[in-house]
Amino acid sequence: MSEIRAPRGTAYTAQGWPQEAAKRMLMNNLDPDVAERPQDLVVYGGTGKAARDWPSFHAIVRELDALKGDETLLVQSGKPVGVLRTHEWAPRVLIANSNLVGDWATWPEFRRLEQLGLTMYGQMTAGSWIYIGTQGILQGTYETFAAVAAKKYGGDLAGTLTLTGGCGGMGGAQPLAVTMNGGVCLIVDVDRTRLQRRVDTRYLDVIADSLDEAVSIALKAKAERKALSVGVVGNAAEVFPTLLANGVAIDIVTDQTSAHDPLSYLPIGVEPADMAEYARTKPEEFTDRSRVSMAKQVEAMVGFQDAGAEVFDYGNSIRGEAKLAGYERAFDFPGFVPAYVRPLFAEGKGPFRWAALSGDPADIAATDRAVLDLFPDNDPLARWIRMAGERVAFQGLPSRICWLGYGERDKAGVRFNDMVARGEVSAPIVIGRDHLDAGSVASPYRETEAMLDGSDAIADWPLLNALVNTASGASWVSIHHGGGVGIGRSIHAGQVCVADGTALAGQKIERVLTNDPAMGVLRHVDAGYESHSAGGVQIPMAR
Amino acid sequence: MSEIRAPRGTAYTAQGWPQEAAKRMLMNNLDPDVAERPQDLVVYGGTGKAARDWPSFHAIVRELDALKGDETLLVQSGKPVGVLRTHEWAPRVLIANSNLVGDWATWPEFRRLEQLGLTMYGQMTAGSWIYIGTQGILQGTYETFAAVAAKKYGGDLAGTLTLTGGCGGMGGAQPLAVTMNGGVCLIVDVDRTRLQRRVDTRYLDVIADSLDEAVSIALKAKAERKALSVGVVGNAAEVFPTLLANGVAIDIVTDQTSAHDPLSYLPIGVEPADMAEYARTKPEEFTDRSRVSMAKQVEAMVGFQDAGAEVFDYGNSIRGEAKLAGYERAFDFPGFVPAYVRPLFAEGKGPFRWAALSGDPADIAATDRAVLDLFPDNDPLARWIRMAGERVAFQGLPSRICWLGYGERDKAGVRFNDMVARGEVSAPIVIGRDHLDAGSVASPYRETEAMLDGSDAIADWPLLNALVNTASGASWVSIHHGGGVGIGRSIHAGQVCVADGTALAGQKIERVLTNDPAMGVLRHVDAGYESHSAGGVQIPMAR
Ligand SMILES: NC(=O)c1ccc[n+]([C@@H]2O[C@H](COP(=O)([O-])OP(=O)(O)OC[C@H]3O[C@@H](n4cnc5c(N)ncnc54)[C@H](O)[C@@H]3O)[C@@H](O)[C@H]2O)c1
Ligand SMILES: NC(=O)c1ccc[n+]([C@@H]2O[C@H](COP(=O)([O-])OP(=O)(O)OC[C@H]3O[C@@H](n4cnc5c(N)ncnc54)[C@H](O)[C@@H]3O)[C@@H](O)[C@H]2O)c1
Repeated sequence: MSEIRAPRGTAYTAQGWPQEAAKRMLMNNLDPDVAERPQDLVVYGGTGKAARDWPSFHAIVRELDALKGDETLLVQSGKPVGVLRTHEWAPRVLIANSNLVGDWATWPEFRRLEQLGLTMYGQMTAGSWIYIGTQGILQGTYETFAAVAAKKYGGDLAGTLTLTGGCGGMGGAQPLAVTMNGGVCLIVDVDRTRLQRRVDTRYLDVIADSLDEAVSIALKAKAERKALSVGVVGNAAEVFPTLLANGVAIDIVTDQTSAHDPLSYLPIGVEPADMAEYARTKPEEFTDRSRVSMAKQVEAMVGFQDAGAEVFDYGNSIRGEAKLAGYERAFDFPGFVPAYVRPLFAEGKGPFRWAALSGDPADIAATDRAVLDLFPDNDPLARWIRMAGERVAFQGLPSRICWLGYGERDKAGVRFNDMVARGEVSAPIVIGRDHLDAGSVASPYRETEAMLDGSDAIADWPLLNALVNTASGASWVSIHHGGGVGIGRSIHAGQVCVADGTALAGQKIERVLTNDPAMGVLRHVDAGYESHSAGGVQIPMAR
Repeated sequence: MSEIRAPRGTAYTAQGWPQEAAKRMLMNNLDPDVAERPQDLVVYGGTGKAARDWPSFHAIVRELDALKGDETLLVQSGKPVGVLRTHEWAPRVLIANSNLVGDWATWPEFRRLEQLGLTMYGQMTAGSWIYIGTQGILQGTYETFAAVAAKKYGGDLAGTLTLTGGCGGMGGAQPLAVTMNGGVCLIVDVDRTRLQRRVDTRYLDVIADSLDEAVSIALKAKAERKALSVGVVGNAAEVFPTLLANGVAIDIVTDQTSAHDPLSYLPIGVEPADMAEYARTKPEEFTDRSRVSMAKQVEAMVGFQDAGAEVFDYGNSIRGEAKLAGYERAFDFPGFVPAYVRPLFAEGKGPFRWAALSGDPADIAATDRAVLDLFPDNDPLARWIRMAGERVAFQGLPSRICWLGYGERDKAGVRFNDMVARGEVSAPIVIGRDHLDAGSVASPYRETEAMLDGSDAIADWPLLNALVNTASGASWVSIHHGGGVGIGRSIHAGQVCVADGTALAGQKIERVLTNDPAMGVLRHVDAGYESHSAGGVQIPMAR
């Protein structure tokens, strides 16, 4: 397999920009600068794929090139299964990944079907072709740590030490997110290459040679109130308890090992080199052992909380796995959403990301300026956009992410479309988001944990979200199961719009980027949350 | 609550026919001639509701009356939760009912949420506003018994005796379906009023005063090769074993008690009068007891099969429940879909139903003639349409159902729209279907049981189906969980189009009624089934 990179520039082979955009974003997901294991079609999250297999990938590309402006391609768990005639307001691609009927929504059944070649794990933006590298998670992580700082440390993390595990595709954003907030971060990963990769991309400052060295570097920086991130090789299930036992002065504790999939978390006593083979040949035994190890790590996290630290689950289901291993206090610390993010969701605020199909970083610089111009009073947004411009190295097609709410996203989208029309950027802009959004997900261990009305597990909302985006003019729409928390634990939807500068695209973008965040407002108002945005949305039973 | 009946005729209060149609069909679902318990908003299936509660019902009606031609109403488990601006090709209503995240997809969690007022059980056509009374199930049941006759008895059931249980909203179609095929039917129900209701509507011929009398009437008719249906009051969990033990010469055995919901199946030893209170106050104990009783009934069914009878599960999950009670051989007899229906699904064949918004039976007579005219070579279809015209008493708005496949449904739909345009019928026609269709459901105990490639539990297909119908111009689209087999066991989608005689409606109908059955062809070709229709559909990986 030769390397895949999205075509750049304004010459294209598909029958229209929306189709070309889908093709480029699929390819961009597999760019070696973007994907974790492009040769296996894995984009991020250990197993999150962009297409089911190589024949499926090539068939999707071929179909996208041939697809007419009133046709729609159907993708079933990474495989193209049909092309149907629809109409020009309809999405060009409809995607459903990893979905299983409830009683069969288990890892063993999923793996059985995956091995039969009948499904794939789509994660969130992997199988829906809008992953933009670690910037996506960096921004969310930055927001989360900023919220921790605001809640407990007067607005910044100077003089605090954060402990976390897992420096992979998503977790690798943590050290930079902490230092951007002025704090010190100690990050543990079993795999040195993962740490090294983050050093190479300036997300991580140093790798220590031992745990002792790591601790002394970290404590020194903390004492000097310097922003610094330190990586150390080790198993979090061992390192976390050791640090707790040694009484190291840690202020904030979280984790982003790939605990959502027990076959991706290294159990204590297993060599990293033996992991893949062991997980493949004895999945049940491996699962039992990794869960027991996770329970050890979670027990230490609860210990840190008992000792006064700010502890939260960062959306990888580690509490759920620890509970399965029999650790009763696993859910003693909260998920990050109820702890920090929910008030934003109630305003339809969530991840708004875009990429420049030209491949030209100047196009993103232009859109950055447009966003600063559109929302002059939003200080945190301005801080992020400026810092991102300085510190974020693009991966694959140049891209940007920030959080915008109801009444904001449509303005930004329409502005981008106007910029394309006027030639202020050199090619169309793709606008999408993560599935971790205000109204697009049901995930009782993460986005919908501890809803006010107890509606955590109700999955009507993400399905309505996908239907609404399909009915509003999105270019591609997806419904996924599992995502970051694993099989049986979430259902979520994604949408992507293409700003190609046409009037039709402008209308579609205005509708989609109004209705998509509106779903967040509706969902949260229905659950009893206050929303300043509720007045702008038509809510029948609230009239 | 005063009685609800859909308005008839050509004067309407909504802003357009699609909106008016949704309102009339919602109301029609609650017509006392249609619904099982209209006062509780229950349409069929014991608990399948049209709206979450009365305030929700009235709010939906109000919103539908106000809804503009480029707006979309969102309904979350029977409650209207938002109105969004979309466009004229978009559905006017998007519905998601009863959906839960996999690990929470259990009856106790569903009931907890239902009691909190956060969800409702939508069944299939109850919560998606396209139930047409027992004719719908009559036609499917007629087709199934015809297939049994074709497979084992040379084309008709004369001289055979069929034993079944459950004479409710759906199950009540069985006696007439059997006699339409020339056979004798013995049907057991604990509730005499259910049997009486079917006598009143000419679906059931007689009610016997005792089991002995029922058996002797049935055996006499069988010996004389006369078509006859006999009802008897009793608990199927007791009557089935008794008949088996007595060696009664029964040829065909099935069941349609409401076994999908253990709280709706009467356990042995419980008085029908005490059932509701007992189920409400001690749901767990009740569930245990009803499952044990179901196991007894299923054990008898397996016994009949061992003795040479044709035995099949009629889609109520009774095998699954019996298995939960510990009866190992529960799945020894097949579901009706793999046994009889799958080859039809591979051709996109499935339930095609329509209703006359005028309320005038003459409009259905006109469409009946149009269907006979369109498909002159389809003998079974012609037989059904003629027999239905004679024997089926309309419930609520006059309606018709027949099974049509890929390449047929669009023709019928476009013809109906032309008839509306030309005034050959007096008001628009609503065209929809059950969720039990070729490409709209994942249900491993029923529609997708024993798929050739093992993909029974993959739920991407119904979600893609809903997205495709949303993208093709359907008037309302729904995604439901549970339906006829219960929580955790299925995900399915529905669509309804409105033929209002406009050119736009004609285009939408042509797209939807091509793409919707195409999903059945795609799904079955992907699973390895042969399909004569595959040539007409664009299937990327089959090229
Ligand atoms: N908070 C969120 O919104 C969010 C978003 C996306 C993903 N996630 C979740 O975060 C987790 C990490 O995602 P990722 O994309 O970085 O996964 P990844 O597979 O790329 O990285 C996981 C890392 O954990 C390391 N690891 C595994 N076992 C370990 C152990 N016992 N001790 C220390 N390190 C260990 C691996 O070496 C790897 O580097 C996943 O569970 C994912 O679902 C959360
Ligand atoms: N084959 C299909 O495609 C299909 C379609 C729709 C529904 N169903 C399923 O068929 C079942 C019946 O549906 P319905 O709408 O008729 O339900 P219903 O609730 O209207 O009727 C069920 C009937 O079963 C009777 N009953 C309950 N326990 C009994 C017992 N122990 N012995 C004898 N009778 C008993 C009740 O008195 C009632 O009349 C449901 O499980 C439904 O999900 C199957």
